[in-house]
Amino acid sequence: MTKPELIYFDAPGRAEPIRMLLHFAGIEYEDTRFPGSEWPAIKPTTPLGFVPVMKIDGKQYCQSLSLTRYAAKLADWYPASEFQALKCDMVAETINELAALAPKSKDQDELKKLRQEFQKDTLTKYWKFVEGIIQENGGILVSGSTPTFADLLIQQSVLMIKLGFWDHIDTNFFDDYPGLNATCKAVEENEKVKAYMAAKKK
Amino acid sequence: MTKPELIYFDAPGRAEPIRMLLHFAGIEYEDTRFPGSEWPAIKPTTPLGFVPVMKIDGKQYCQSLSLTRYAAKLADWYPASEFQALKCDMVAETINELAALAPKSKDQDELKKLRQEFQKDTLTKYWKFVEGIIQENGGILVSGSTPTFADLLIQQSVLMIKLGFWDHIDTNFFDDYPGLNATCKAVEENEKVKAYMAAKKK
Repeated sequence: MTKPELIYFDAPGRAEPIRMLLHFAGIEYEDTRFPGSEWPAIKPTTPLGFVPVMKIDGKQYCQSLSLTRYAAKLADWYPASEFQALKCDMVAETINELAALAPKSKDQDELKKLRQEFQKDTLTKYWKFVEGIIQENGGILVSGSTPTFADLLIQQSVLMIKLGFWDHIDTNFFDDYPGLNATCKAVEENEKVKAYMAAKKK
Repeated sequence: MTKPELIYFDAPGRAEPIRMLLHFAGIEYEDTRFPGSEWPAIKPTTPLGFVPVMKIDGKQYCQSLSLTRYAAKLADWYPASEFQALKCDMVAETINELAALAPKSKDQDELKKLRQEFQKDTLTKYWKFVEGIIQENGGILVSGSTPTFADLLIQQSVLMIKLGFWDHIDTNFFDDYPGLNATCKAVEENEKVKAYMAAKKK
């Protein structure tokens, strides 16, 4: 194939795991980033009005989880076992769903109230579920003994909350989740992840 | 593994493609169905408050797309090619997203208005996108030359709208989509699908 192009905001978000996995796979790609101000002009040119979009041989592909899974397969970060892949897909879909469930409001006081309730119920239920999956697999990873795309999605999502990117969600929310913290550590200490971070700094 | 159990309402919905694919794979499973009246009691026993849930070796797995993909792999209805799988995953995720986007309201007049707008914009945009993918692949299927789980999800979703299960969406909505109709025909004429339908009637 010709050099693929990944199109997204100039931010980590839903594109960062795809960027990382393409890097792990050794695939050269065009990392096209645009500022938020250009989004109204770009949105109507995307297949469904969302990014990330990946252009492959001139055609546009979307749906972030599908693109992440595709890149994960190329990077060998997707399990060959159907059952291990089920666990990873389930965790990936759960994290994806959670992002869509976070309440929104233009009223800051109402947003704060809604987000605090969300943290207590849905956010806690969803992350406890993922923590349970990790504990069943020995306390470090979602499946197997090497990181998969599900572990990468966990690490990226946990990091966003820890860094305060989720308005009104406690940045220390994950203090009581040993499995999730172990996953983050395993991902961050992975040689390919370290090489990506080093390349990014240049 | 011990005999898996699939838990869902006594309805097609998000479980039917999984039931079909498990049948195609020749996997014996417990098809546990419950009436809507039992849902309030069952909901808190599920991992995230949703069905379908599949019990495998005593543990519960959820997320319908992940379960569908798992069953599709067992049935050989999931492409081995990463790129063909990307196209199928993208279509599956698009159909899944569309179901979540359909507007809801307890006021019937408002519901009708919202659904008519939804049909004109989002529903049309999403299905035109899927129609385009089918046309790029020769006009019959999403990828390759034999049906995949993406084609099955198309057929099931189109059928639900044609049968009037989507309130206030025209049952003849798909009249102008030759690719989607060809996909439905190819799925319905598939020998494994015919065998499933015949077994169901018994």
